[in-house]
Amino acid sequence: MTVLAKPVFSHRHLLGIEGLSRPDIEALLDLADEAVEVSRQVEKKRSVLRGRTLINLFFEPSTRTQSSFELAGKRLGADVMNMSVATSSVTKGETLIDTAATLNAMRPDLIVVRHHHSGAVQLLSRKVSCSVINAGDGSHEHPTQALLDALTIRRNKGRIDGLTIAICGDVAHSRVARSNMILLTQMGARVRVVGPSTLLPAGIERMGVEVHRSMESGIRDADIVMMLRLQRERMDGAFVPSLKEFARFYGLDEEKLKWAKPDALVMHPGPINRGVEIESAVADGPRSLINEQVEMGVAVRMAVLEALAQNLPNS
Amino acid sequence: MTVLAKPVFSHRHLLGIEGLSRPDIEALLDLADEAVEVSRQVEKKRSVLRGRTLINLFFEPSTRTQSSFELAGKRLGADVMNMSVATSSVTKGETLIDTAATLNAMRPDLIVVRHHHSGAVQLLSRKVSCSVINAGDGSHEHPTQALLDALTIRRNKGRIDGLTIAICGDVAHSRVARSNMILLTQMGARVRVVGPSTLLPAGIERMGVEVHRSMESGIRDADIVMMLRLQRERMDGAFVPSLKEFARFYGLDEEKLKWAKPDALVMHPGPINRGVEIESAVADGPRSLINEQVEMGVAVRMAVLEALAQNLPNS
Amino acid sequence: MTVLAKPVFSHRHLLGIEGLSRPDIEALLDLADEAVEVSRQVEKKRSVLRGRTLINLFFEPSTRTQSSFELAGKRLGADVMNMSVATSSVTKGETLIDTAATLNAMRPDLIVVRHHHSGAVQLLSRKVSCSVINAGDGSHEHPTQALLDALTIRRNKGRIDGLTIAICGDVAHSRVARSNMILLTQMGARVRVVGPSTLLPAGIERMGVEVHRSMESGIRDADIVMMLRLQRERMDGAFVPSLKEFARFYGLDEEKLKWAKPDALVMHPGPINRGVEIESAVADGPRSLINEQVEMGVAVRMAVLEALAQNLPNS
Repeated sequence: MTVLAKPVFSHRHLLGIEGLSRPDIEALLDLADEAVEVSRQVEKKRSVLRGRTLINLFFEPSTRTQSSFELAGKRLGADVMNMSVATSSVTKGETLIDTAATLNAMRPDLIVVRHHHSGAVQLLSRKVSCSVINAGDGSHEHPTQALLDALTIRRNKGRIDGLTIAICGDVAHSRVARSNMILLTQMGARVRVVGPSTLLPAGIERMGVEVHRSMESGIRDADIVMMLRLQRERMDGAFVPSLKEFARFYGLDEEKLKWAKPDALVMHPGPINRGVEIESAVADGPRSLINEQVEMGVAVRMAVLEALAQNLPNS
Repeated sequence: MTVLAKPVFSHRHLLGIEGLSRPDIEALLDLADEAVEVSRQVEKKRSVLRGRTLINLFFEPSTRTQSSFELAGKRLGADVMNMSVATSSVTKGETLIDTAATLNAMRPDLIVVRHHHSGAVQLLSRKVSCSVINAGDGSHEHPTQALLDALTIRRNKGRIDGLTIAICGDVAHSRVARSNMILLTQMGARVRVVGPSTLLPAGIERMGVEVHRSMESGIRDADIVMMLRLQRERMDGAFVPSLKEFARFYGLDEEKLKWAKPDALVMHPGPINRGVEIESAVADGPRSLINEQVEMGVAVRMAVLEALAQNLPNS
Repeated sequence: MTVLAKPVFSHRHLLGIEGLSRPDIEALLDLADEAVEVSRQVEKKRSVLRGRTLINLFFEPSTRTQSSFELAGKRLGADVMNMSVATSSVTKGETLIDTAATLNAMRPDLIVVRHHHSGAVQLLSRKVSCSVINAGDGSHEHPTQALLDALTIRRNKGRIDGLTIAICGDVAHSRVARSNMILLTQMGARVRVVGPSTLLPAGIERMGVEVHRSMESGIRDADIVMMLRLQRERMDGAFVPSLKEFARFYGLDEEKLKWAKPDALVMHPGPINRGVEIESAVADGPRSLINEQVEMGVAVRMAVLEALAQNLPNS
């Protein structure tokens, strides 16, 4: 985590993968490779964000994303403040814009935001003078998830360009899928989406991906099988006939995994629904990258925080 | 934020504005002016509270006050611990006094307390050996709000002495109004309170303020128009006939603001109820100090923490 | 808090008092004696855990235990992250094991866990590569409570060996009682348990303690009277006929305390139910160690964190 003479990344915010160039993405992944080593040391503390203020503003609860940003910020020496909706003035009827203006007046350097509405993070970013990082907005984008997935793939396969990557399950409602489709195609991968019609968004073909409605064709000869979480609120029968049916046709088990390449690896953004979109034998098996994805998450967030902090007005 | 040879402030606690002398208030505002510059730098970290423990004990939820104290403490290098009622033993039936004794035994240096009962913070202060700061107790006092308002006024008008300041709306239930009336009269301002009889406390005249029941006479020629938040729980018809009626007679809009001086400035402690006590055109307009008040809040809390820490027994 | 050439404590986790040798316990208490002095200084900050990550994972709410670990970690310079169930993925149906694996992947050094099921903390400890500290699991163990009680006794009586210690009240459901029985007998004390049959566990005699069903015989000539908290959920009549009856026969008041030695001291893990298991006159009286126990709690947790950190793989 050296201080570079030149900014590696020219954007003020990280609102999505859309709009990032291939060199932008590669610069972040390179920085993240260095950050991995920091967290593997006994003393994980760096001082690149010393005296900087990071606010974690979560309108939706989240274990892993909020914790990951919190640890990333603390390990870089920032003062981190968590704000969750339950204890915030939002319950007093304050608008998102007023919350943004209030927080901005406290002079933070970085605000990480998760919000249940697509576009809310971008809206907020226009009202503040600091850097904003999208930690997930509605069904729009979740850029640090896509970056951590890319980092995990690059470290395990040596490259992303030319790989065949199948994204399977509830593609329609998934910001993880959306950010990954944009990033992986940008990086030269051949991306497939796999799921029942009810879980595939309209116009998906325009995103430059292949569309498969069966797992057999979808993951055949894939290098990476990336499963998505089936949100609880989709499990009520409106989108899938039953959990049992869904698991039978789209849940990843060892049988289905045989269709992929012999050295195919399995990913999932977590938390997993065991026995729904993924069987325990696969999730806990030797080809699963699920826990490594979590580790890469902290590293990618350290990289993003450091890259954005280099570009702040006062730096 | 230099370490001074002599304490600038001779009190052990900050329980209210009542009891503070004019030099006390001026010393805090001078220290806060320095703190403003700290938060405007890239590296906002000072070490005057290094190794000190600050506990934020909130029996009522609050975005801005709790966050403001948290950032103030962290920027001065303190270890900050937040405790909210929902996760505390208070839900197990522990008394306020027992909570105070327990926290005191953990050897904090500073405890910031918000409580829904007037007088609760003073009661708690008698049971601990550290410094206590009142972050709002019932309808009694909210001293750091009054100090941040004074700082905002002094920086924008160059003085407080001699100004005409109108405090408008739900005066009866407002600890913000009460602390401001004490501070502003102490500092030589001419203070008016403006509101319907149902929202003015009995005996208000004894506080050394002018009482107005119409906005027209109340804000005429005022230098500062300070609006108060109408608490949701007062909106049910017991205190105001209807929100629409209240907004029509007492809500600040551009028309009413014309009654004040041409260079009058507008304040509000936030969060605002848009269209109730204040119109968006005024709140977001060029004469609004609302966001600056939030910034001054962090600075004033840094000043209060530093001033009290200088007087702790062990220092 | 000097860095020792040799580890003072050879265990990787602190899951319970069971399994600790007398020298293990004495080493922790000696280290804790030093930690007491740290918290009594103005600058309470040490750097022995600088760059280390401590996660506080609480599946049950707790004021004093969570706060105590948080302050202990911060005073030793660790980065501390609190995770409570309400905001965690556990509400999304994630299993304890998956939570453990996820947190472990974030590379913490120490995880403090409280869980409502006996054995849950041990289970979690098998899935992680860092040190785990049991902060209370079901009715099984609460080792840092027993250690802080031992520290408090040793500092006030000069020793534990040979003392007569009566543990009174809801012994059956108390992890505090269980950990204390193991520790105090290991350290050579003569331990009695006192309570109605419905609140004594089956087979209690096998734990090497004397069993008393009356307070008069139970605390006669005791050096220490340790009262237990009557859990609210036991107060409904299934275990005690009524609170009034329980208080009359088993609540500690000044009359009953006369049966103990003239210099007997009174303890309670808190929070206390005033007028139920203990009268205010005793709880707030000169023989009460209740607040000192809280202070010793921070010191013992500092000692445990430091001792375990010395044994981590990477150190």
